[in-house]
Amino acid sequence: MSKLIDFQTEPDSYRHWRVEHDGAVARLIMDVDEQGGLFDGYELKLNSYDLGVDIELADIVQRMRFEHPEIGAVVMQSGKDRVFCAGANIKMLGGAPHAHKVNFCKFTNETRNTYENSGAESGQHYLAAVKGACAGGGYELALACDEIYMTDDGTTSVALPEVPLLAVLPGTGGLTRVTDKRKVRRDLADVFCSIEEGIKGKRAKDWRLVDEVIANSKFDEFVASRALEIAQTAKGERQLTGIQLGAIDRSIQNDGSVSYSAVEVEIDRANGIATITISGPNGPPPKDLDELHSLGDQTWMLRLARELDDAMLHLRFNELEAGVVVFKSLGDPELVGAHEKFVFDHIGEDWLSHEICLNWKRVLKRIDMTSRSLVALIENGSCFVGVLAELLFAVDRSYMMEGDFEEDNRPVAAVKLTSANFGPFPMSNDLTRLETRFLGTPEMVGEAHGEVDKLLEAEEAEQLGLVTFAYDDLDWEDEVRIFLEERGSFSPDALTGMEANLRFPGPETMETRIFGRLTAWQNWIFQRPNAVGISGALQRYGTGKRGEYDRKRV
Amino acid sequence: MSKLIDFQTEPDSYRHWRVEHDGAVARLIMDVDEQGGLFDGYELKLNSYDLGVDIELADIVQRMRFEHPEIGAVVMQSGKDRVFCAGANIKMLGGAPHAHKVNFCKFTNETRNTYENSGAESGQHYLAAVKGACAGGGYELALACDEIYMTDDGTTSVALPEVPLLAVLPGTGGLTRVTDKRKVRRDLADVFCSIEEGIKGKRAKDWRLVDEVIANSKFDEFVASRALEIAQTAKGERQLTGIQLGAIDRSIQNDGSVSYSAVEVEIDRANGIATITISGPNGPPPKDLDELHSLGDQTWMLRLARELDDAMLHLRFNELEAGVVVFKSLGDPELVGAHEKFVFDHIGEDWLSHEICLNWKRVLKRIDMTSRSLVALIENGSCFVGVLAELLFAVDRSYMMEGDFEEDNRPVAAVKLTSANFGPFPMSNDLTRLETRFLGTPEMVGEAHGEVDKLLEAEEAEQLGLVTFAYDDLDWEDEVRIFLEERGSFSPDALTGMEANLRFPGPETMETRIFGRLTAWQNWIFQRPNAVGISGALQRYGTGKRGEYDRKRV
Repeated sequence: MSKLIDFQTEPDSYRHWRVEHDGAVARLIMDVDEQGGLFDGYELKLNSYDLGVDIELADIVQRMRFEHPEIGAVVMQSGKDRVFCAGANIKMLGGAPHAHKVNFCKFTNETRNTYENSGAESGQHYLAAVKGACAGGGYELALACDEIYMTDDGTTSVALPEVPLLAVLPGTGGLTRVTDKRKVRRDLADVFCSIEEGIKGKRAKDWRLVDEVIANSKFDEFVASRALEIAQTAKGERQLTGIQLGAIDRSIQNDGSVSYSAVEVEIDRANGIATITISGPNGPPPKDLDELHSLGDQTWMLRLARELDDAMLHLRFNELEAGVVVFKSLGDPELVGAHEKFVFDHIGEDWLSHEICLNWKRVLKRIDMTSRSLVALIENGSCFVGVLAELLFAVDRSYMMEGDFEEDNRPVAAVKLTSANFGPFPMSNDLTRLETRFLGTPEMVGEAHGEVDKLLEAEEAEQLGLVTFAYDDLDWEDEVRIFLEERGSFSPDALTGMEANLRFPGPETMETRIFGRLTAWQNWIFQRPNAVGISGALQRYGTGKRGEYDRKRV
Repeated sequence: MSKLIDFQTEPDSYRHWRVEHDGAVARLIMDVDEQGGLFDGYELKLNSYDLGVDIELADIVQRMRFEHPEIGAVVMQSGKDRVFCAGANIKMLGGAPHAHKVNFCKFTNETRNTYENSGAESGQHYLAAVKGACAGGGYELALACDEIYMTDDGTTSVALPEVPLLAVLPGTGGLTRVTDKRKVRRDLADVFCSIEEGIKGKRAKDWRLVDEVIANSKFDEFVASRALEIAQTAKGERQLTGIQLGAIDRSIQNDGSVSYSAVEVEIDRANGIATITISGPNGPPPKDLDELHSLGDQTWMLRLARELDDAMLHLRFNELEAGVVVFKSLGDPELVGAHEKFVFDHIGEDWLSHEICLNWKRVLKRIDMTSRSLVALIENGSCFVGVLAELLFAVDRSYMMEGDFEEDNRPVAAVKLTSANFGPFPMSNDLTRLETRFLGTPEMVGEAHGEVDKLLEAEEAEQLGLVTFAYDDLDWEDEVRIFLEERGSFSPDALTGMEANLRFPGPETMETRIFGRLTAWQNWIFQRPNAVGISGALQRYGTGKRGEYDRKRV
């Protein structure tokens, strides 16, 4: 699995999904091409999926928001006859290296979260219309929908057969959504997760696994009418016209560096460091909403978000040894603030401004969830303002230049807070990054709020607790270098565990539970011989032999 | 590590700790015997600890509650000169099998939670008086105290050096307590957890790592006066006289079975099943408080709790292949109810009744946290009433006999709820087990409450959602047998992960975060070559060579 994984796609290239539009209702049809696996060595039978299938789904979900704001209900259904979806492809999982399995699950989780939030955030509700076997990752696709409808045809069932069949967990939020979203009684959940063949008919509804079980003859009609009802309630009579999401402007060099229009990624392979430099806008924000809509995906706020998101995914999957990700920025703080302000000023009235903001929320969460050491360097000439300043509170620590630097004519380093730092971009724990940062001293959030819209130089930023360290010309280079070298010398695994614990203090949500509890257990199991050893269940799947287990409980 | 691990000890046998009493203040002095390791192959240098040291601490904490209710403040300090505590012994960890490491961390976590709750629950507050190096598990000992005081002698520091030094996490709640209890700012926590030598003096206070830093010349006086102040506030003028906790009555047979006075453990090694049968009381409850206090540790409620706790620990450490634990009970429901009622009726006025109840809370949490499949069989002649009925809601699932059984003259199976099921025994998520069970249907808690103090036979219990399945004479034996066989065929690791996710839905607390998030990540790291491989940091510790790491981030 060493080929470059590309997260960019577009509808004409889809091999696994079809989207059909009918007014405010879209039908999202999963019809996986068996021969269309991202890697060799497996066939995507029975609507099973691999990363490639999920990259398409993520693209669809993203385009639904931007290209089809008129859509109020999306019906997820199968294009195959007797199967809704058989879940993640087991041969793919069995053959994938540990890191790929973990990153695959993280990405699929992020995609599930995205469409799960779509109803509440954008009035775009997903419904699962389950006909045929809906197992494992298939049921997890449905669980992330707002509503699940199942046909009563005598064979259709929902199932989480991972534990009995594969000796792993349902890894895409299944267990957490069963207990915390569907609120299935815990002993019934235990039974459900132990039954390979799953549960069908009335019992599935009684146990809260689905919202309704409908006679097969009336199923399509029921779902269509329910979707229409939801879509009309969500979107009413509003006439919304989407924008086009074009291909992003990207070139990847042999040395690993990646150039986008507003993002540069440099890779220092010897030291395991990736440096992401964000460029501020070159000109003023759109004059008005008409200009924003005609700029579409080229407006700086959206263009940057898409590029940054792609860069993070690229690093996660294609640059596994870049253990430290350094964020820098370069640009005019005034212009960053002006672009951001334009978008924020129109959130209430304009769907596109609203979606640009929501997209940033997702991108920032993706950064929070990236298991690399995250560092911000706030240098002279930088533009960490508002939404870009959020990066300073997403990283594990930040360093800021203080005072004059010899032969450096750039504007002195400064940070500027805006309303962006006080609400619109909650972390997965539902707190803002500043609230999370100041969990022990909540009065500091208020103090920071008092400094909104002011350029804060190092001394002030440090005093307000907004940066970890500030260094002057004498110390800057050495301190940053020593830190980066030291960080590079630590065990990547220990850092992953440490960061996963320190980044998300305070309250937990379904999202943090999925990424923190479920994922951590799954990663453990993905290392255990009972799952991945030569006699383990994942390896033996399809051979007709069951896994052989070391029976010791840990 | 195959010798039997015994969790029973008493003060005359301590090798590692001393307790000194002075009125309402106790001093708990850690002075680890280097040669007193529980296993061969390591020396417990620098007040480092292994399971044996922690078994003594758990015993002390338990006796402090029951034998010394007059104590209001416990000062934890070191008996050695230049070190407070160096944490868990690394050579022990490096040599221990995975399962021992995991079980060791779980037990130490439970002990930390016990004295951490002691102040709020029993007015017995723990203070850490830190002189000398306080590192890793040593700082975690302090973190679980209500207050941490540190001397300013130029060398004393607190540290969590696990990540840089050992490539593992602080595994006894350190990361969680730093972020969620001490509420250290997350970037400062990141810095703190990356500095091998730790942090001393004023910075430790500024960063919230300790409550106060005191000049060395005034340190002892400060701590003594603070302890006295706390003790007097907590206990005032009350004259409380403890009871003695004698040795529990236990015999272990060659076939693995264990007999206590009120608990029988049978081990079916071929099928990996341990059956715990609890006996109800033989006679009526104490007539009055005088009789309760003179019975002391022999009163059924306390005797049973201690035996059950010991049985659970025995299974965890000494019977690793008993993947399924079956709970049964045998006795007169009326008597169980009467004993429990006596204790509950006196909680407000009598410290011993209060402590018996708190002890049950801990025992039930220990059961929740036991990573075995937990099952209850509610047979004819059983006595699952009140606190024993809590077991039915702690287990993963329950089976109940329904109707008449041929050649079975025992009273027909019934369950009885009492006030015990509606408040006094919260799980670590701070909900009662019934609230957790009925997260999706909270009205069912109220319905259950309407049936308090009634004997509920199978049909009614099933209807109220109190049991998973009820079977009659025709099906009972086959259904139970098939389930147990099937459970035994699943991967132990997958079951551990599944149960850890399904058992604790709903809100999270510091406790659930420690056991669910921190522990899961630590277990993952404990499997990774970067920590435990031949070139990993744990194996190389003490050789002068650093660990060699695979640099891929996962």
